[in-house]
Amino acid sequence: MGISPLAPKKYTVLPPLDGVRIAVAKAGIKYADRADLMLMVFDAPAAVAGVFTTSRCASAPVDWCRSVLADAGATTRGFVVNSGNANAFTGKKGAAATQMTAQAAAKAISCNPSDILLASTGVIGEPLDASRFEGLLADMAPAAQTDLWLDAAKAIMTTDTYPKVATASVDLGVKRVTINGIAKGSGMIAPDMATMLSFIVTDAAIDQPVLQAMLSGLTPSTYNSVTVDSDTSTSDTVLLAATATAGNQAIVVADSDDASAFRGALEIVMHDLAIQIVRDGEGATKQVEIHVRGADSDTSARRIALSIANSPLVKTAVAGEDANWGRVVMAVGKAGEPADRDRLAIWFGDVRVAVDGERDPDYSEDAATAVMKRDEITIGVDIGLGDGQARVWTCDLTKEYVAINGDYRS
Amino acid sequence: MGISPLAPKKYTVLPPLDGVRIAVAKAGIKYADRADLMLMVFDAPAAVAGVFTTSRCASAPVDWCRSVLADAGATTRGFVVNSGNANAFTGKKGAAATQMTAQAAAKAISCNPSDILLASTGVIGEPLDASRFEGLLADMAPAAQTDLWLDAAKAIMTTDTYPKVATASVDLGVKRVTINGIAKGSGMIAPDMATMLSFIVTDAAIDQPVLQAMLSGLTPSTYNSVTVDSDTSTSDTVLLAATATAGNQAIVVADSDDASAFRGALEIVMHDLAIQIVRDGEGATKQVEIHVRGADSDTSARRIALSIANSPLVKTAVAGEDANWGRVVMAVGKAGEPADRDRLAIWFGDVRVAVDGERDPDYSEDAATAVMKRDEITIGVDIGLGDGQARVWTCDLTKEYVAINGDYRS
Repeated sequence: MGISPLAPKKYTVLPPLDGVRIAVAKAGIKYADRADLMLMVFDAPAAVAGVFTTSRCASAPVDWCRSVLADAGATTRGFVVNSGNANAFTGKKGAAATQMTAQAAAKAISCNPSDILLASTGVIGEPLDASRFEGLLADMAPAAQTDLWLDAAKAIMTTDTYPKVATASVDLGVKRVTINGIAKGSGMIAPDMATMLSFIVTDAAIDQPVLQAMLSGLTPSTYNSVTVDSDTSTSDTVLLAATATAGNQAIVVADSDDASAFRGALEIVMHDLAIQIVRDGEGATKQVEIHVRGADSDTSARRIALSIANSPLVKTAVAGEDANWGRVVMAVGKAGEPADRDRLAIWFGDVRVAVDGERDPDYSEDAATAVMKRDEITIGVDIGLGDGQARVWTCDLTKEYVAINGDYRS
Repeated sequence: MGISPLAPKKYTVLPPLDGVRIAVAKAGIKYADRADLMLMVFDAPAAVAGVFTTSRCASAPVDWCRSVLADAGATTRGFVVNSGNANAFTGKKGAAATQMTAQAAAKAISCNPSDILLASTGVIGEPLDASRFEGLLADMAPAAQTDLWLDAAKAIMTTDTYPKVATASVDLGVKRVTINGIAKGSGMIAPDMATMLSFIVTDAAIDQPVLQAMLSGLTPSTYNSVTVDSDTSTSDTVLLAATATAGNQAIVVADSDDASAFRGALEIVMHDLAIQIVRDGEGATKQVEIHVRGADSDTSARRIALSIANSPLVKTAVAGEDANWGRVVMAVGKAGEPADRDRLAIWFGDVRVAVDGERDPDYSEDAATAVMKRDEITIGVDIGLGDGQARVWTCDLTKEYVAINGDYRS
C-alpha cells in the first residue's frame, strides 16, 4: 500500500517536553519488522484526562482507562499502547491482559498499576498475548528518551500510511508552554471518535478537572467532526496529560485568560491531528469539508452535514471528480431534518451549482469540475431555514478503501 | 458492466392480466439503443395505492403521484415511467414536465391527466425534456400489448444489470387472481425505499383503502428492509393497481379470509422483488441476510440490523470472504441501542463464532470461512437482552460499487 497522496511533505519535529520519555519496541503482535509497542513515561505524576468511544462494545483497555479515570484529580505515570490487536471482545482474557500489561509497566516504572493507562488498536476478537510485553517493558522504561515522538506516532499505526504528529506553543505569563500530540486513524472512523487513538501531552500545569473539561469541550468540533466510513471503533481513546514542568502558574479555572490561551493552542493541535486522520482515511485521495448553514439548529446542521459526509454516493462521486451535486440533494433529503427543497442552495468550492431548488441558472459544468480536480474540496450547503450551522470533514470513497478492508485480516 | 453473478438463471414469465397493456419506446433520454420509456395502460379505471420516498427532496413525479393519490378511492388509467433522468431537483421546470407528460398520456389514452401516475429514475438535477415523450405516447397507447412485462422491467432499469419480475396467484373463492410485479434498483437503496421503482398490478377486485393498507403494511418488512448503500433516493415509488377483471368478489375489508390470502400472495411478490433488488445491488457478489434477535424491542433489533447491514467495514469483509466477526461486534456497538457486550453471540450461517462476549471456544476459522465463500450468507446476532427481532437484507461492498458510482454521470 503506498503512502496517501494527501500525506504531509515532511513531518513536524515535536520538541522534547521535560519529564516525558518515550520508548518503542517490536513485540511482533501482528506486524513483522516494525515497532508495535509504545511506552510513554512520565517521570512524575501528570494530571490526565480522557475521552473514549461511545461503543456499547468497548475494548478491555477502554474499560481499564475508564476505571482509572473515574476519579477527578487522576494522575498518570505512563501510557502503554500496542498496535496489531485491539484487545476488544476478548472477555475475561482481555481484562486479564490489561491487568498483566499495567502490572508489567508499573513494575518497570516503579509505580502502581493504576498509574498506567492503556490503549490497543488492531483486529477485534483475537486474544492479546500480553506476556510478550513483560520483558520488553522492563527494558523500555530505563531506555526511554525525550526525542522519540515521531517513533511513537509510527508505533501506534495500523492501516495508517503516515504518522500523525502536531505541536503548538503558547505563552502563559512569562512561561512558554508546549502541547505535543500524536494520533492514528484510519478506518472505522466515525463522528463518535474513530479507530482513533490520540495522545497529547503538555508541559503546562493544569488542574485535572480543567484539563478534562477542555478535552471534552474541544472533542466535538475536532475528533468528533471527522468521518471516514461512519463506523465507530470499540477502541477509540484520546488521552491528554499535563506534566506541570514548564513552570507556569497552574491553570485552576476554565475561564481565566491563561485557560483561554491554552485552549486555543490545544484546539490547534486537536484540529490538526483530526484533519490528518481524514487525509489518511483508508484509500483517500481527496479531503472534503462539508459546511452546512441555514439549518433549523446547529444540531440539525450537524446531522445534515454527516448525512452528506457519510453518503457512499457522494463520496464515490468525489473520488470520480464528478460534480454530482444531485447526490448532495439526495443526502440532504435523507437526513430526516427540516429542509425545504425549494430553498436549498449548494456550492462546490466557490461555484454555486444549485439554488432555489434547481440547477443554478449560471451553472458551469467546467467550473464545477475544475473544483473537483483539487485535492481539498469544500461542499457548501445553505438550507435556507434558520441560523444553524456545522462543519465536518471527510475523505472520498475509493476502490482502495474496499481493497484495504477486503483483506485486512488475511 | 457484466450481469450480476447473483442474477436469476432465467426470468419468470409473467402471465397477461386482463385489461392491462404495456408499451415501451426509445425516447433517447440518456441511453442509446434501448427502451427507456414505459407506458402501462389500464383499459378501465383501476384502484391504485402508492408508497413513496421519505426524502425531504422528493422528485417532481413523486409530488405528482402524492397529489393524485391524496384522495381515498383513487383510480388510475395509466403509469408512465422513464429511466435516465429522475426529474428531481428540477424546480418549476420539473413540475411542468410532469404536467406535460401526464397530459400527453391522458390524450393518448382518452382520460384525465389526474388518471395518470408518473415515475422517473436516473440522474438528479438535469431538466427532463418531456417533449420527447409526447409523440411517442400517442403511438404507444394503441400499440400496447398484454405480454410485455419483461420489456417493461427492462425499460425502467438504470444501473440494474438484470430486469426484476415476480408473479404469484391465489384462489379467492372460485376465482383465481394473479399479482404481477416489476421493480428496478440498484444504487441509492436504503431502508426508506431506494432508487427503487416498483409497479405491481393484480386482476383482483379490491377496494382502494384496503389496497393502500396492504401495500403500506407490507412495505416495512419487504422493500424497506433492504439496503444496498444506506442512501435514500428522491424518487422511490411503489404503485399497486387492481383492475378487478378476475371476477372475484371484491375485497372490501382488511381482515377477511380473502384479504388474508391475497395479502400472503402480495407479500411473496414484494419480498421476491425486494431480494432481487439486493441481489442486483451495485457491484454485489453476495446476498447477506442479517437476523438480529434478543434485542430490547423489534425497533431496537431493526436499528442494530441496519447498523450491521450499512457498515462499510462489514460489507467489505463479506466481499473479501473474510469471517471478520469483530466488525459485526463493532457495528452492534455503534448502533446506540441497548446491548451488553458480555451477552452477545454471533453466527455466520450456522457457525457460532462468538458467545458471551468473546470468541466461541469451539471457533473454527475454516468453518466460518467456508460459510463466507457461499453467495448467500446469513449473519445472526443474539443480543441476549429481550425478545426483539428483525431481519434485513443487503449485499457486499466491492470495488465495482465504487467504479459504478465514480463515473455514473460521465
